[in-house]
Amino acid sequence: MTRPAVVLLSGGLDSAVTMALAREEGRSVYALTILYGQRHAWEVEAARKLASRQGAALHRVLPLDISSIAVSALTGHSPVPREAASPVTERGQAIPSTYVPARNTILLALALAWTESLGGEEIFIGVNAVDYSGYPDCRPEFLAAFESLANMATKAGVEGKSIFSVRAPLIQLSKSQIIREGHRLGVDFSLTHSCYDPPAPAAACGSCDSCRIRREGFRQAGIPDPTRYANGS
Amino acid sequence: MTRPAVVLLSGGLDSAVTMALAREEGRSVYALTILYGQRHAWEVEAARKLASRQGAALHRVLPLDISSIAVSALTGHSPVPREAASPVTERGQAIPSTYVPARNTILLALALAWTESLGGEEIFIGVNAVDYSGYPDCRPEFLAAFESLANMATKAGVEGKSIFSVRAPLIQLSKSQIIREGHRLGVDFSLTHSCYDPPAPAAACGSCDSCRIRREGFRQAGIPDPTRYANGS
Repeated sequence: MTRPAVVLLSGGLDSAVTMALAREEGRSVYALTILYGQRHAWEVEAARKLASRQGAALHRVLPLDISSIAVSALTGHSPVPREAASPVTERGQAIPSTYVPARNTILLALALAWTESLGGEEIFIGVNAVDYSGYPDCRPEFLAAFESLANMATKAGVEGKSIFSVRAPLIQLSKSQIIREGHRLGVDFSLTHSCYDPPAPAAACGSCDSCRIRREGFRQAGIPDPTRYANGS
Repeated sequence: MTRPAVVLLSGGLDSAVTMALAREEGRSVYALTILYGQRHAWEVEAARKLASRQGAALHRVLPLDISSIAVSALTGHSPVPREAASPVTERGQAIPSTYVPARNTILLALALAWTESLGGEEIFIGVNAVDYSGYPDCRPEFLAAFESLANMATKAGVEGKSIFSVRAPLIQLSKSQIIREGHRLGVDFSLTHSCYDPPAPAAACGSCDSCRIRREGFRQAGIPDPTRYANGS
């Protein structure tokens, strides 16, 4: 019997590659998309297509509007940072304004509930400590702390029926390495999106931090980028 | 300036007393009600009245239907345990079927997001280790683990701007002690409810574990119980 694993699937490039890696390991994938009050809510459609193409056993979409309790450039109305305000060269030097309070704690808590309900042990999350070293909840020490919390917080953990683990297979990879992995595994990158501030549904601005990291990643990987950017190519 | 604190307010007796204790300590209370897919969703109205009566600065209600990812007697369709299945005398000997996977982890994660957004440091939660010792996520060691996670997971924690703490003032109190505290602080118990399986909106069955603990608590405290139970008194 294949082991069930919950994969946090945002519809972005990293989570799509993470799901492909879980499938490659032979897991029965239960994809979980949390639709929080972010600007690009249309991304759920891409997530649905990705889950279906990549053979997820089940895909759940959970609406959760945290915009009233978590203030950030991604959930609120403050401008998304662009080149002048936060050049790529400054990544890692400060926590970006796109930080969403307690986001990965919330996502992992919900994934944990489903993992325990399924009788599984693994949660896959596409966090990455290289390109986004500024986020406190993308660091290996945070994930390790959540893992030990998970085993104290749950019936299955306390009773010793499950040993929960948080799997973050991309954590030490660069964006170009992630893209090469996805390419190797046949991920359809045209269904993934990265833009923080899309000018239209399913479009990409080409100039936000996330677009710039993505473009540079494809260039470095030497793999064609199927994204159409508003801001040239 | 009064310090902001987030209080997790279910509308039950324990959370109402917890909110009163936070107010007594001089906190500016931001009450957070998570409306998850439980059976007694009407309890949000009681929570609104309690927040208003007890002088909360703000009350947010966040719908979060976890019934599709967290299987439990409280969120699913399995019967709520009654006397024959789980006598009061067996409390603490096993984890009750009313356990909801990762519930307090989810609630605390959401409260943490709001606390950080408000520039606060404290989360108040009405968990209790005496009457509900069976729940893994009501234990002091779980709360301590969450507290240390909170300080690693957040921008304010990592930057040293805030030191987050989880306050559980009821954790070592018996139900009758909690009721005496609430009485002393003027909590309107008629607005609180405890029933796991109300026979009608705002009613109480009188025979579920939660009703039985509540009735016995009022009896031991020597304080009149304003609840009308379907099952006699």
